[in-house]
Amino acid sequence: MKRALVPGTFDPITAGHLDVITRASQLVDEIIVGVAASPKKSPLFSLEERVALAREATKALPNVRVEPFDCLLVVFAEEIGANIVVKGLRAITDFEYEFQMTALNYQLNQAIETIFIMSPPQYMYLSSSIVREIACLHGDMDGFVPECVRAALEAKFA
Amino acid sequence: MKRALVPGTFDPITAGHLDVITRASQLVDEIIVGVAASPKKSPLFSLEERVALAREATKALPNVRVEPFDCLLVVFAEEIGANIVVKGLRAITDFEYEFQMTALNYQLNQAIETIFIMSPPQYMYLSSSIVREIACLHGDMDGFVPECVRAALEAKFA
Amino acid sequence: MKRALVPGTFDPITAGHLDVITRASQLVDEIIVGVAASPKKSPLFSLEERVALAREATKALPNVRVEPFDCLLVVFAEEIGANIVVKGLRAITDFEYEFQMTALNYQLNQAIETIFIMSPPQYMYLSSSIVREIACLHGDMDGFVPECVRAALEAKFA
Amino acid sequence: MKRALVPGTFDPITAGHLDVITRASQLVDEIIVGVAASPKKSPLFSLEERVALAREATKALPNVRVEPFDCLLVVFAEEIGANIVVKGLRAITDFEYEFQMTALNYQLNQAIETIFIMSPPQYMYLSSSIVREIACLHGDMDGFVPECVRAALEAKFA
Amino acid sequence: MKRALVPGTFDPITAGHLDVITRASQLVDEIIVGVAASPKKSPLFSLEERVALAREATKALPNVRVEPFDCLLVVFAEEIGANIVVKGLRAITDFEYEFQMTALNYQLNQAIETIFIMSPPQYMYLSSSIVREIACLHGDMDGFVPECVRAALEAKFA
Amino acid sequence: MKRALVPGTFDPITAGHLDVITRASQLVDEIIVGVAASPKKSPLFSLEERVALAREATKALPNVRVEPFDCLLVVFAEEIGANIVVKGLRAITDFEYEFQMTALNYQLNQAIETIFIMSPPQYMYLSSSIVREIACLHGDMDGFVPECVRAALEAKFA
Repeated sequence: MKRALVPGTFDPITAGHLDVITRASQLVDEIIVGVAASPKKSPLFSLEERVALAREATKALPNVRVEPFDCLLVVFAEEIGANIVVKGLRAITDFEYEFQMTALNYQLNQAIETIFIMSPPQYMYLSSSIVREIACLHGDMDGFVPECVRAALEAKFA
Repeated sequence: MKRALVPGTFDPITAGHLDVITRASQLVDEIIVGVAASPKKSPLFSLEERVALAREATKALPNVRVEPFDCLLVVFAEEIGANIVVKGLRAITDFEYEFQMTALNYQLNQAIETIFIMSPPQYMYLSSSIVREIACLHGDMDGFVPECVRAALEAKFA
Repeated sequence: MKRALVPGTFDPITAGHLDVITRASQLVDEIIVGVAASPKKSPLFSLEERVALAREATKALPNVRVEPFDCLLVVFAEEIGANIVVKGLRAITDFEYEFQMTALNYQLNQAIETIFIMSPPQYMYLSSSIVREIACLHGDMDGFVPECVRAALEAKFA
Repeated sequence: MKRALVPGTFDPITAGHLDVITRASQLVDEIIVGVAASPKKSPLFSLEERVALAREATKALPNVRVEPFDCLLVVFAEEIGANIVVKGLRAITDFEYEFQMTALNYQLNQAIETIFIMSPPQYMYLSSSIVREIACLHGDMDGFVPECVRAALEAKFA
Repeated sequence: MKRALVPGTFDPITAGHLDVITRASQLVDEIIVGVAASPKKSPLFSLEERVALAREATKALPNVRVEPFDCLLVVFAEEIGANIVVKGLRAITDFEYEFQMTALNYQLNQAIETIFIMSPPQYMYLSSSIVREIACLHGDMDGFVPECVRAALEAKFA
Repeated sequence: MKRALVPGTFDPITAGHLDVITRASQLVDEIIVGVAASPKKSPLFSLEERVALAREATKALPNVRVEPFDCLLVVFAEEIGANIVVKGLRAITDFEYEFQMTALNYQLNQAIETIFIMSPPQYMYLSSSIVREIACLHGDMDGFVPECVRAALEAKFA
């Protein structure tokens, strides 16, 4: 059985993340969405909130499970028995950073393969930080986030 | 009448910004320089100081007006009746970020067109953050900022 | 009056080119679409064919005119009285090349301003060479080119 | 059953290609290595030679099959029943081109998913064109190509 | 005599930094490793600790000396009589930033030449921030840092 | 004694090349400008013409010598006793290609170090191919090429 890890900070999960998770869920038998604690990024949503929003957003996908983690990505992948890591790619800056992290993870554990899925054009500009910025300025989030995330953002910035 | 918005944090306005504003002022009838509040960037100069420095630096340009804003760029553009946004482009990192923001703004309001002007080679390396760093280390700011900004920076780092 | 030049090889004109020309035609009073002879690129369509296809494709735009040229871009811009050059930007490779050409043109004639418009996401991947390749392999060109270009491509590769 | 297409011109197949094919063969049930005719690239090796070298180089991989194709990639993928395309990524230029082609293929057929595997650092600089250049200048190809390709290159440039 | 400055924050010095310093030490007569105070980066290690670790890590290189600095890079280069600055290059983001800083330094003092050495593939993904992150998550730092740095990181994150 | 190789096709040598060679000649004891035969690029000038123009253009630099070569760069470097290769860097595309070639050369011969010098802003857009294009269209080459090259280009395109 192929089990893949889709890691991220998901602060909060966006329509772009959901697109990657949905497409990945059709490539392998089981997906674990790994929500990184990422304390250094001072997330807007707590780890518990981010996990809850990701679970709500992915509940229609039967082979997707959401779990938090606060260790090295390769260590978490081993713990959950995933030998594939799936990442979405949007732009050059993404690419460079992902290239470095993939080379690092490959060095740390060569048994874990990282694969990349490119975001479709309509999600190419979408990121959690842009979503947070739009919400902070009370802009229209239509089409950018799942409904549960929209409500959570509106509550945060009320 | 064509009215264009030149947005930025302008912390502080540099010779590179002035070059973009001056060239843009020859392309359209009226330019509004929009100074974003950008509280998350913890600017060195207050919003009032940044507006004042930008006004002083552009006072010789008759069709240029400086205004602060603290909402989404597309919302501010609508408010002031601007249907063009002008941005200066320097390097790859700029390009990627601007590409994402332009695609986002296009999604939010397709009636607003974003156009880009490339910085000439001599301003290509210039940014507000580099200017702040030089000032902080008491370096020579000759040619990098308008005279009023030089005085303001020297006062900040005295 | 603002007159702008939209230069290119247009071998053939695509839906992405049309998008740039249409949007540019709303920014200035008059647009000259300049079709470069570009003999070194060994174009699929002759200069006459490329001009004819571009004229057919833009005939609904009242302030757009199509003209061939075989001199330096800045020389042609001067000849036609255009002080603005408009280019569409798609990706990094585009950006780098355009950056070099803009710096060069700026060196050759500082009175001519180059402005850039970013392609919307749905045209980001579109180029004349990709269109030629799809046509050559008898793929579906729906949405990629104007109707007259589709017919011309099908005739070429029949 | 998951069947994936690994497309390329393979002129000739390199150690970097083999690395991608081997790793991909562990992710899915069956791999079809699709050798594109690519007449416009004027390949050094004929299509038959390229297919024969790729077959020889992958003969130890039981779930890998090599086939030529001369139609659109998405059409070939459909013909062979592959709903996954696997590409290796090396550098920025690769990334931009692959980004464009993936967006195009996604437009042509949304049922076919493209996934990317990054080359490990030691193969990052390797390409068929560099291998051809080294062979042409009688340089040492040790570690860059499979043994059968080394012999074929030496014969070509004898 | 050629004296070169290898500047950085070195928070902490990594195997990649050591590779650049070692190779640079074979190109010139004397190397000064300049450890920038960089208070804005809120370094993990104090300036004194960073200098001490860099001295320990480079003690086997007879023509290498480590010194702290808290002024503009070109001013420090002048003070120590270095007319060459050596920087390691890893990836695109590096390149863009270094390109800007080099153009700036060239503007500030044209007598100081900046040269770049590319990191070999195995160090391409390595940076102080990645090393700090691995250490923070108690990952294996084998091969990423000199022994003295490993001990210092383990003490910090004990 | 430090002897460095500055390789290129030099079709023809430009003011940007001369800037790199001049600055490199101040860093080492002796410079060999290596003119690659590069038959695959179908150069405008013959190898003899390119060598002659480079010799004429560099005749004022006492420690610079110009030699043709038609083997692998690392083999030529060994033959002439150079253990340093100097390359000029302009833009991203350059960077990526040079990164690949440097990694390849490092693999072929680790005793040869490649160092990079960034072109100053005013030469950033300059390349042999742009110079050939300007000359072909009878544009003004002032400041782009040495006097002897201007005459040679005018003769070619008369």
